[in-house]
Amino acid sequence: MLKIAVDAMGGDFAPEVNILGAIEAASDSEIEIILVGEENKINEFLKDRKDLKGKISILHVEEQVGMDETVSTAIRRKNTSMKKAIELVKEGNAQAVLSAGNSGAMMALSLLLLGKLPNVDRPAIATVMPSLKGHFILLDAGANVDCKAEHLLQFAYMGNAYHKALFNSTSPKIALLSIGEEATKGNEATKEAFRLLKSSKLNFIGNIEGKDIFFGSADVVVCDGFVGNIVLKVGEGLAEALMKMLKREVTEIITGRLGYMMIKPAIKSFRKKVDYSEYGGALLLGINGTSIICHGRSSAKAIKNAIKVAAEMAKKEIYKTISESLEHMEEINESTNSFNRLLCS
Amino acid sequence: MLKIAVDAMGGDFAPEVNILGAIEAASDSEIEIILVGEENKINEFLKDRKDLKGKISILHVEEQVGMDETVSTAIRRKNTSMKKAIELVKEGNAQAVLSAGNSGAMMALSLLLLGKLPNVDRPAIATVMPSLKGHFILLDAGANVDCKAEHLLQFAYMGNAYHKALFNSTSPKIALLSIGEEATKGNEATKEAFRLLKSSKLNFIGNIEGKDIFFGSADVVVCDGFVGNIVLKVGEGLAEALMKMLKREVTEIITGRLGYMMIKPAIKSFRKKVDYSEYGGALLLGINGTSIICHGRSSAKAIKNAIKVAAEMAKKEIYKTISESLEHMEEINESTNSFNRLLCS
Repeated sequence: MLKIAVDAMGGDFAPEVNILGAIEAASDSEIEIILVGEENKINEFLKDRKDLKGKISILHVEEQVGMDETVSTAIRRKNTSMKKAIELVKEGNAQAVLSAGNSGAMMALSLLLLGKLPNVDRPAIATVMPSLKGHFILLDAGANVDCKAEHLLQFAYMGNAYHKALFNSTSPKIALLSIGEEATKGNEATKEAFRLLKSSKLNFIGNIEGKDIFFGSADVVVCDGFVGNIVLKVGEGLAEALMKMLKREVTEIITGRLGYMMIKPAIKSFRKKVDYSEYGGALLLGINGTSIICHGRSSAKAIKNAIKVAAEMAKKEIYKTISESLEHMEEINESTNSFNRLLCS
Repeated sequence: MLKIAVDAMGGDFAPEVNILGAIEAASDSEIEIILVGEENKINEFLKDRKDLKGKISILHVEEQVGMDETVSTAIRRKNTSMKKAIELVKEGNAQAVLSAGNSGAMMALSLLLLGKLPNVDRPAIATVMPSLKGHFILLDAGANVDCKAEHLLQFAYMGNAYHKALFNSTSPKIALLSIGEEATKGNEATKEAFRLLKSSKLNFIGNIEGKDIFFGSADVVVCDGFVGNIVLKVGEGLAEALMKMLKREVTEIITGRLGYMMIKPAIKSFRKKVDYSEYGGALLLGINGTSIICHGRSSAKAIKNAIKVAAEMAKKEIYKTISESLEHMEEINESTNSFNRLLCS
């Protein structure tokens, strides 16, 4: 049995979607859920569900982290649902934790309470995004704003391990997000990272440009957290804006309204595919434990998916795999460095 | 009469679209065009058009810059259509130049031959992008990959002047692209740029997140060239991928095909609105002259639009306005610096 701690109070539609998502996920025989938050509010949704006894329990915590609270304030507070949920993992009373609340605070608290893995300099946020061929992993999606080449290399190793665990792949194609395919295109950090990745043991396919990421040529797209967060949010905003523009155009022509009615089921299914709140949240890679950050606007289904991903990653102990793969990276780096020293001496 | 030099040989569909675009633009009574490139090839399109005498002339140049040529090679070559077209502006024989060819080479050659404006540290590429409320200017879209806060401040001043000239606006809303709205969110450069912009005389509305740029709350969105280029290309790629995904969904449902037929005119008109090859290219800001880089895949219509924008910007002598606005910036900066020195002393 895998115990998953859910911050019941985090997110724009909390606690409702978190509880409903937890109820759905609890139908999985391997999953047990601990909802952390205000008992009264949570019980409103659970009172008629005696069937869930033993599957869902409540850890009563009165306070919660505000969505706009600064990270430094959130860290100092002792009794928030987010903190207590993470502590359940720290103390071994849960195997994974997730929250749709303040993502900066979730990142910082996970790092603070669970600690970094050995060999990791900077933990990263990995998100799963849709492409024409399925999905790709983008990282870092916002944890580290100013990155060195070595950090990008670490992200690549972590993304590689995550892709293998999530999609059962054997040799994911790793690409570096840049402004041209040639090794000479990019900024200081990416140009150096290109060199490091080229001499790594990863299946590095080179630089990838922004226009190509959604066509599925890469399985893992590596970038710094500033760029990654902007890409993620540009994608989110553009998809929404495009659908609005399209609808506006459609309703302006005579046959448009009827035509739109006819394709509506397709638009609905399309929206689900591109709405990454459906994808079960972003995993924190490089943390000594399984911690997932969900989109603030997550639906109950998104929470359910996130709980399932959390359970799967906890079961596979992905964080241990990551630690091992980074150990391996150290070896490679060591030998490259020795080689470079040889060349320069 | 405004003379516009067009690199006839630049771009994926050269010389055809360049010549057809020039012919369309030549119907404007104020515009005269010099097509620079292989006379034989150009004349194929012009031979039956005696009506264009005096409106379109040809400067025969045999060589051209390859799309994949490195900038350093392109710069060294003496007789390319791109170089000769820019030289026409340098020598005062044309008021503006445009090319849909190798954009890195066009940027470098324009800078080299026309020179930087006084007060400008780094010229920038400014692109016009569609939003739900109309358009916004994004800069830098790829000229400068590693930027300091001072460069971002200069981009803001240049974008401000460009928006005023292009859209006849009086006080464009300037925003800084970042990963959160608060002043404390961002990387080293944007956090410092936020401070500089806050104390500038610009209508600075603060940080803007990636998801909001397409909703039209800012008129000018400022970022470094690495981020800008990625945003531009993510936008381009995502729009294309989304339309493909939508079409795939639509053709999978029974009523879909018919419905799609009915909304097709709307999709066509929508595509035009979001296809920024329609927007007349990207202006190089900070160069001592008017130089426009068009998308490699520009259509004849895009070239026509770019020629018109080139003529308008040349007529308004936008580069002089930019130089003046930066002079003004220097004054502001000077007084801010004195103020800061006062505070720290």
